[in-house]
Amino acid sequence: MKALVYHGPGKKSWEEKPKPSIAEATDAIVKILKTTICGTDLHIMKGDVPTVTEGRIIGHEGIGIIEEVGGSVTNFKVGDRVLISCITSCGKCEYCKKSMYSHCEKGGWILGNLIDGTQAEFVRIPYADNSLYAIPANADEEALVMLSDILPTGFECGVLNGKVKPGDSVAIVGAGPIGLAVLLTAQFYTPAVIIMIDQDDNRLKTALTLGATHTINSATENATERVMKITGGKGVDTAIEAVGIPATFELCEAIIGAGGHIANIGVHGKSVTLHLETLWSRNITITTRLVDTVTTPMLLKNVLAHKLDPQKLITHRFKLEEIVKAYDTFGNAAKEKALKVILSS
Amino acid sequence: MKALVYHGPGKKSWEEKPKPSIAEATDAIVKILKTTICGTDLHIMKGDVPTVTEGRIIGHEGIGIIEEVGGSVTNFKVGDRVLISCITSCGKCEYCKKSMYSHCEKGGWILGNLIDGTQAEFVRIPYADNSLYAIPANADEEALVMLSDILPTGFECGVLNGKVKPGDSVAIVGAGPIGLAVLLTAQFYTPAVIIMIDQDDNRLKTALTLGATHTINSATENATERVMKITGGKGVDTAIEAVGIPATFELCEAIIGAGGHIANIGVHGKSVTLHLETLWSRNITITTRLVDTVTTPMLLKNVLAHKLDPQKLITHRFKLEEIVKAYDTFGNAAKEKALKVILSS
Amino acid sequence: MKALVYHGPGKKSWEEKPKPSIAEATDAIVKILKTTICGTDLHIMKGDVPTVTEGRIIGHEGIGIIEEVGGSVTNFKVGDRVLISCITSCGKCEYCKKSMYSHCEKGGWILGNLIDGTQAEFVRIPYADNSLYAIPANADEEALVMLSDILPTGFECGVLNGKVKPGDSVAIVGAGPIGLAVLLTAQFYTPAVIIMIDQDDNRLKTALTLGATHTINSATENATERVMKITGGKGVDTAIEAVGIPATFELCEAIIGAGGHIANIGVHGKSVTLHLETLWSRNITITTRLVDTVTTPMLLKNVLAHKLDPQKLITHRFKLEEIVKAYDTFGNAAKEKALKVILSS
Amino acid sequence: MKALVYHGPGKKSWEEKPKPSIAEATDAIVKILKTTICGTDLHIMKGDVPTVTEGRIIGHEGIGIIEEVGGSVTNFKVGDRVLISCITSCGKCEYCKKSMYSHCEKGGWILGNLIDGTQAEFVRIPYADNSLYAIPANADEEALVMLSDILPTGFECGVLNGKVKPGDSVAIVGAGPIGLAVLLTAQFYTPAVIIMIDQDDNRLKTALTLGATHTINSATENATERVMKITGGKGVDTAIEAVGIPATFELCEAIIGAGGHIANIGVHGKSVTLHLETLWSRNITITTRLVDTVTTPMLLKNVLAHKLDPQKLITHRFKLEEIVKAYDTFGNAAKEKALKVILSS
Repeated sequence: MKALVYHGPGKKSWEEKPKPSIAEATDAIVKILKTTICGTDLHIMKGDVPTVTEGRIIGHEGIGIIEEVGGSVTNFKVGDRVLISCITSCGKCEYCKKSMYSHCEKGGWILGNLIDGTQAEFVRIPYADNSLYAIPANADEEALVMLSDILPTGFECGVLNGKVKPGDSVAIVGAGPIGLAVLLTAQFYTPAVIIMIDQDDNRLKTALTLGATHTINSATENATERVMKITGGKGVDTAIEAVGIPATFELCEAIIGAGGHIANIGVHGKSVTLHLETLWSRNITITTRLVDTVTTPMLLKNVLAHKLDPQKLITHRFKLEEIVKAYDTFGNAAKEKALKVILSS
Repeated sequence: MKALVYHGPGKKSWEEKPKPSIAEATDAIVKILKTTICGTDLHIMKGDVPTVTEGRIIGHEGIGIIEEVGGSVTNFKVGDRVLISCITSCGKCEYCKKSMYSHCEKGGWILGNLIDGTQAEFVRIPYADNSLYAIPANADEEALVMLSDILPTGFECGVLNGKVKPGDSVAIVGAGPIGLAVLLTAQFYTPAVIIMIDQDDNRLKTALTLGATHTINSATENATERVMKITGGKGVDTAIEAVGIPATFELCEAIIGAGGHIANIGVHGKSVTLHLETLWSRNITITTRLVDTVTTPMLLKNVLAHKLDPQKLITHRFKLEEIVKAYDTFGNAAKEKALKVILSS
Repeated sequence: MKALVYHGPGKKSWEEKPKPSIAEATDAIVKILKTTICGTDLHIMKGDVPTVTEGRIIGHEGIGIIEEVGGSVTNFKVGDRVLISCITSCGKCEYCKKSMYSHCEKGGWILGNLIDGTQAEFVRIPYADNSLYAIPANADEEALVMLSDILPTGFECGVLNGKVKPGDSVAIVGAGPIGLAVLLTAQFYTPAVIIMIDQDDNRLKTALTLGATHTINSATENATERVMKITGGKGVDTAIEAVGIPATFELCEAIIGAGGHIANIGVHGKSVTLHLETLWSRNITITTRLVDTVTTPMLLKNVLAHKLDPQKLITHRFKLEEIVKAYDTFGNAAKEKALKVILSS
Repeated sequence: MKALVYHGPGKKSWEEKPKPSIAEATDAIVKILKTTICGTDLHIMKGDVPTVTEGRIIGHEGIGIIEEVGGSVTNFKVGDRVLISCITSCGKCEYCKKSMYSHCEKGGWILGNLIDGTQAEFVRIPYADNSLYAIPANADEEALVMLSDILPTGFECGVLNGKVKPGDSVAIVGAGPIGLAVLLTAQFYTPAVIIMIDQDDNRLKTALTLGATHTINSATENATERVMKITGGKGVDTAIEAVGIPATFELCEAIIGAGGHIANIGVHGKSVTLHLETLWSRNITITTRLVDTVTTPMLLKNVLAHKLDPQKLITHRFKLEEIVKAYDTFGNAAKEKALKVILSS
């Protein structure tokens, strides 16, 4: 089969690889119908993710058709259409029993990282019963690709951890795909104010069409002052960090109101300064989280009920074999006005 | 009347001051029966708390007898014995309605800070109906002095914010009065493991008698290694910072388990380093809080039911007029083996 | 002034009464701008509410202008426009401190019940600081009348108690004004399915325009069977009773799914049969509640942010002096296709 | 092997049966070391549980040693000592993913009900990885037998569902083994008052030694009046039904305070009367639950940490082959002063 293979920093190719086969009774082999590229994949390609080694097939998102199942798989059969979760869950370790699949002792984020991933014609999914989700007949397949990672990540790490509630004020720092996924799912809880902060006017414009009530270009405006003005000097109830650098995290510290929640989503490479000299008495909560994908069934329900339209995040479409070109587009997101790209087999 | 007055950094005296009188219809005047000295009072005396100005009567803890009430006070009458909360609550601002009395628009921590306090023969208590609590006839008065500040602080900022649950492992960093108040009240939730960490062997010994299951002297042992050994390499479910310096906060970051809670109590004068480069994916929660004293009625119930014995924290007793001497003792806590001192009128 | 006075079962009149005056320092006198009639008022007029005695001015909803304030009132001044809560809260009793204003020791539902109410030119509001809410300049006054009672009742007793969550299935039994208030506010949490059940096709039609995904006329259809069909045989996650008779409560018992929540709103005159012989093992939760109006500030924010349009519930408008005619219309709701009526001074 | 077999109402025998063998790759065969008899087993023997058919081996509690494992079992190996949960969980259905194992689509309560159980020399455990728990070397085996059913049932259905909190008042109606398990585990949350209500003075005496603060013999005292006196006329915060008949459930309705929780544990054969005519406005919550055994790992931790001593519930010990005699003793609990019996192989 053909697959996208990582060959060290800066090197990748769409090349022939052996088709995967069942290794454990709990495995399934899935034929990929649609996949996408994640910001994390760009980091991998730069060599920033040391767990990814030479020869690895990349990708942890997608939908497909069951090609083969191991002897213990009971939730799925050959021919079923399935959504692949970016997080693999064994369903029986201490963490899985606590619904903290991100820390599954045998799974977690392993697809396209420790084992071969989804940017290929076929992929082997361990613990298939707990790591795949059935797709109903009438579902929009492109929309569902957004449920492998980006939607549960935005919702769980941002919205749920940030305790967004009706009537609240929410600031989302970073209007990339993840920040926009937060924007879409924050509206599940009907906050009164959603302020989107970024440095790219195109993305801010998109944010307005997706439900933001205010936008701030932090390159040209004083974001802290604007947020304070919007919130009557109180700061926001929830600030969600969706970038992953010290400056954006410290912006969250500056704009959070007393009693508020800072929810970190960003993948940080460096430590940040936590201003406890002012925050110690402000009754705030800060959370971090690797997505657990425990909310995938709920997100699926709301996509099917047309309460959530994640296909709005898709800007470009390619054939699977055009994936190298798709990487170029996604890697120049600002110039290409790219959010999410869809690759179809 | 006589009162302890702050006269600038390092200067205090027990001197004659005018007896307070009713200023608002919601005030009460309380004759002090017993009071105590807080670690914060030591900071004030060093000049570390800029809101406290020359001439201020210090103190925010104590019990007393109602001497006089304003026209709108309905919960109390002259002669009632009352517990004074360190936090003043108006009961009708946005924050009070959210049970976040610490941020009351007209109250919060004002006693012995913005207005005259309790280290005096009499004190004026604003919003008496919401800031005082009735003391039943049979109550141990010394125990109740611990409920003005230290017990609700340890419980709300440490135990509640730290989400201590049955079966959990908890580390308390700092075995001073606040850390020991955490230790006492953490047991309300029956964690399986409570590790007390400090550099003073005497305090650690006390911690063992008060319910700690393990103690670590971080001056002589590698605290992180010991915690990891005790928890099978996982780290603790809850780490509670009860000191207020960067080193102890960073120790909490080092020993927290995946999915765990770091609850800050310490009053920090400097920022700390937050290691998001490792913590971003560890599903942790960090909280800060100025005590709201919303749990005072519950704590009072459990003291009366003998489920909590805060008098165990009292090591020294003085007459109120000996308060300068009491400050000397409390200010040399390690040498004097002092925890809490009681001053009685 | 003029007011609507109850003179025993079936007898009421719009008549001259003394204008109210400040009785306590915490009182305010409010000039009524707009008020409405509640289903409870109809019960009062029939003689069903024994606490309402001959001579009482009826009504517990409305907005107005502050005419006079007592000496302790600090949140409002003469000329302020205010929303009147149906629940009076003293802000300082045990229940108010627990945000359970419905059970306030000196308040609760007393307006138009134990003391004179809002269907008058003026009304005295006890504990004004805690029982009134400021109305911003640009607000839709008619919409806000719906926030005195019906919206917080539907939201707190139905939606919050029923634990409505994104992706859930919700059944609302009763499409009167309260049931429709549930429908509007349930959407704050974006359930996937909202089934409205009633016997009046006109109300069901309205429900569809307000966001119901399914409607069932229980007079002509087997409601239990339809709900089971819609939910794939599982029953709903939340069933909300908004009628107040045994049959509708038992319908909730029949359609609730394992792990689900039954939230009672209805004012019941008789006991109901609880089928513990089947429900004991179904992991269900049943709640009752008299509205606390703790969510009024949030509802106000969402009305101002145009996230909630309660004016959609208003079908008829009268002048205040036409109130007897308004009662006739509201009392023949089915025939008149009446939901809420607005009375303006 | 030998096993206790049900042969229709009133008929049982300790007889030879085939030793079970692995049927699915997820099975384990466990050699029973210790088991016990549940009140439910007595109901089965009377013919009250229609799902139990002639020839069934009874029993759903116990500890043992792994004799054999299927090919997919990874958490256990031959020779491991294990605790058997009364609830079988597949770990991969919709309900298991929601931690509602009681409603597992392929499991739930099946042991000694739909499949052969633990009152035998060997038992087959389906989905062993999710339905067994490892026993550490130093554990008290008798104590752990109490963790198969009675402790998680009392804790989850009673204490957790009843939302017991520090300082609360709790009434437990029924001082049988389940009621006493509630009593032991309610203390995890340090309520101020625990009132035990029963008609057997011997059990009430035991309750006092296990932590009850008050006892009421409802055969000789007016239980409602006594509870109201103890609680200052307010009623209890939590009332836990641990009997299963209408009278005891209605007692809970009578003694519950405003804002309180009624948690049903009892297995009811008939409907009960729910007094909504008074309760509708009292802000109460009623819960039902079949135990999920999600708290077994926590209970195990607290037994090992000596925070919970369930062996206090054991009154009689027999050899496994004396099981018929053990049934006689347990079936005459009042006369024999029996709580839990232990059967050892």
